[in-house]
Amino acid sequence: MSDTVGKVIKCKAAVAWKACKPLVIEEVEVQPPRAGEVRIQIRSTGVCHTDSYTLNGHDPEGLFPCVLGHEGGGVVESIGEGVTTVQPGDHVIPLYIPQCRNCKFCLSPKTNLCSKIRATQGKGLMPDGTSRFSCNGKTLYHFMGTSTFSEYTVLPEISVAKVNPAAPLDKICLLGCGIPTGYGAAINTAGVEPGSTVAVFGCGAVGLAVIMGCKEAGAKRIIAVDINPDKRQIGKRKRLLLLSFIYLFIAQSFGATEFLNPKEHDKPTQQVLVDLTDGGCDYTFECIGNVMTMRAALEACHKGWGVSTIIGVAASGKEISTRPFQLVTGRVWKGTAFGGWKSRDGVPQLVEKYLSGAMKVDKFVTHTFDLTEINKAFDVMHQGKSIRSVVNF
Amino acid sequence: MSDTVGKVIKCKAAVAWKACKPLVIEEVEVQPPRAGEVRIQIRSTGVCHTDSYTLNGHDPEGLFPCVLGHEGGGVVESIGEGVTTVQPGDHVIPLYIPQCRNCKFCLSPKTNLCSKIRATQGKGLMPDGTSRFSCNGKTLYHFMGTSTFSEYTVLPEISVAKVNPAAPLDKICLLGCGIPTGYGAAINTAGVEPGSTVAVFGCGAVGLAVIMGCKEAGAKRIIAVDINPDKRQIGKRKRLLLLSFIYLFIAQSFGATEFLNPKEHDKPTQQVLVDLTDGGCDYTFECIGNVMTMRAALEACHKGWGVSTIIGVAASGKEISTRPFQLVTGRVWKGTAFGGWKSRDGVPQLVEKYLSGAMKVDKFVTHTFDLTEINKAFDVMHQGKSIRSVVNF
Repeated sequence: MSDTVGKVIKCKAAVAWKACKPLVIEEVEVQPPRAGEVRIQIRSTGVCHTDSYTLNGHDPEGLFPCVLGHEGGGVVESIGEGVTTVQPGDHVIPLYIPQCRNCKFCLSPKTNLCSKIRATQGKGLMPDGTSRFSCNGKTLYHFMGTSTFSEYTVLPEISVAKVNPAAPLDKICLLGCGIPTGYGAAINTAGVEPGSTVAVFGCGAVGLAVIMGCKEAGAKRIIAVDINPDKRQIGKRKRLLLLSFIYLFIAQSFGATEFLNPKEHDKPTQQVLVDLTDGGCDYTFECIGNVMTMRAALEACHKGWGVSTIIGVAASGKEISTRPFQLVTGRVWKGTAFGGWKSRDGVPQLVEKYLSGAMKVDKFVTHTFDLTEINKAFDVMHQGKSIRSVVNF
Repeated sequence: MSDTVGKVIKCKAAVAWKACKPLVIEEVEVQPPRAGEVRIQIRSTGVCHTDSYTLNGHDPEGLFPCVLGHEGGGVVESIGEGVTTVQPGDHVIPLYIPQCRNCKFCLSPKTNLCSKIRATQGKGLMPDGTSRFSCNGKTLYHFMGTSTFSEYTVLPEISVAKVNPAAPLDKICLLGCGIPTGYGAAINTAGVEPGSTVAVFGCGAVGLAVIMGCKEAGAKRIIAVDINPDKRQIGKRKRLLLLSFIYLFIAQSFGATEFLNPKEHDKPTQQVLVDLTDGGCDYTFECIGNVMTMRAALEACHKGWGVSTIIGVAASGKEISTRPFQLVTGRVWKGTAFGGWKSRDGVPQLVEKYLSGAMKVDKFVTHTFDLTEINKAFDVMHQGKSIRSVVNF
């Protein structure tokens, strides 16, 4: 690939021209990386609800036209001036939360929310305030600093994690968002303990990763809460025999012990859970992004020590509420982004864990598509049919 | 006092006949303790906002007529059958959160919320479902399981902490509520660390105890937030020279380094604090009971790690709200009751700490009254003139 170094690359990308319209496969121009930047050939990318959230116009800060995608895996094509930590040919995972190792967030052991390039990333631009993407002469915005729905993309050096090239990129691309987010919420943010009783609201990829983390942490009861009848069958052991072998295989390794469908109960879900668990859960997780389920998750916690962790992203302007008595009597309300992993440190470790067989990733991939079929990946996600779709380039 | 053992005692008490009316000093009859109970001669009692909250009819579960008071110090007059941990003559602090040492809450290291007698205590009754108080033939309800506004009161054995008799009861009665609540919120619940930046909303006795705890924990900046101009002068060092020697002495030992009066700013208090602290506070505490200041306290926390602890009791039906983004970006919302102290274990330790000179208590007592003047103690509290009034019998 050395003949592309320093040159504009013309390649295929799925462009989001405007909100609420399908993505369009276009030939785009990707500029070479500038100082401190790397250009990456994306090999695979997951499709996540956050992409859909922006594409559907729910994100008031969403910018169009843009190149969406934030759960990718790729190979470094070229590097800009001063880049020292990755080289062409390195396998990397793009990171929507960077790790500069210098800001006050990176220097604190308590958080992973590196703020180094937050301002420009939020504006759909590289740290120098410009874009590397254009299509037919029109500038395209970056998205979440990653824009993985393109054969080539450009990222700041601090926004890529160099990973073991032995790991298949069409699987470990999911370590760019959904799996670390859920798994880390259980392990890092909540700190689930052996013997715990846990409820997980929402059983998409993030929720299943939470379940996986809770199982690894030794939770005794893991109650999967979802209203999706397809997902129900992933969570409920009794019905597993009715299911395809793929889903059986997935469900067993995720570790849910019980399933609760709120639609089957007249009482509020928090009350159902409190009754089921003799007082409430030790840990709950909200993986949906609905402020009412966030409240239910908090109030399903046990008095005195229950910890509820918000993972889902709520619609713009929505607020969570509860009676302060819930907190005064010992429940804790917290949240997490990217599962609390300091990204450049954590993602390579997760890849090694996957390679060692200690972490499930393959089972999350229920559908694969090529780039021209990317809108189908959104369709199966909205229909609740997929855990994760991976788009391969 | 042995001649009273087993007999009804007639004594003075401040009776709350109905909501929103002043207390009335009456002669009441106090029955002897039944099995597992102790009768205590109250020597001193603090007057707290929670007494006022119920007296003013804000507590939907408030029961009248009753004997209020929950911040007392006294001497055991007699014990009921089977009582082994205290004897007549022991100095004790009544506890509105008991410690039975057997329930799942007592057996958990994570909480102090013993649930053993919660149901009857909430109904204004002793664990056997009856009252020990009457006045002119009318049964009076107990309050918070303590009812310290009476010369004699009866409590379950699990609701008294035996303390060192060397400590003056007219001071350490405050270790029955306000001081442990604020001090423990900083030390136990929030776990303030050396070098922290802290904001404390509300500078009554609880807030000042929070400040004391934060100072002891090594906080670098302690910002006292209050709209009360009298309290302002307690918090603001620059104005200390204008003040009486008593307040000077108090303020210096509490440890606030800055004062913020929200009324002097056009911006929301959370924004003022975020600006003042280059991104927000490491720890905030709400000691008022207002759901808007609870929100401000959370949102004044630093992204990534700020922890906000609710101590104040909100009016019935009120709810706290915020955008979930506040939690997803790393702030933690929690609460505390009685500062997290397991009561029978913690209060005697706090008394020893006071006796050793390592904990300020005397400075909280700004006013003293005798029982006949108890309504004046409520007046100075409502006027914001007192830190704590102590009523001596």
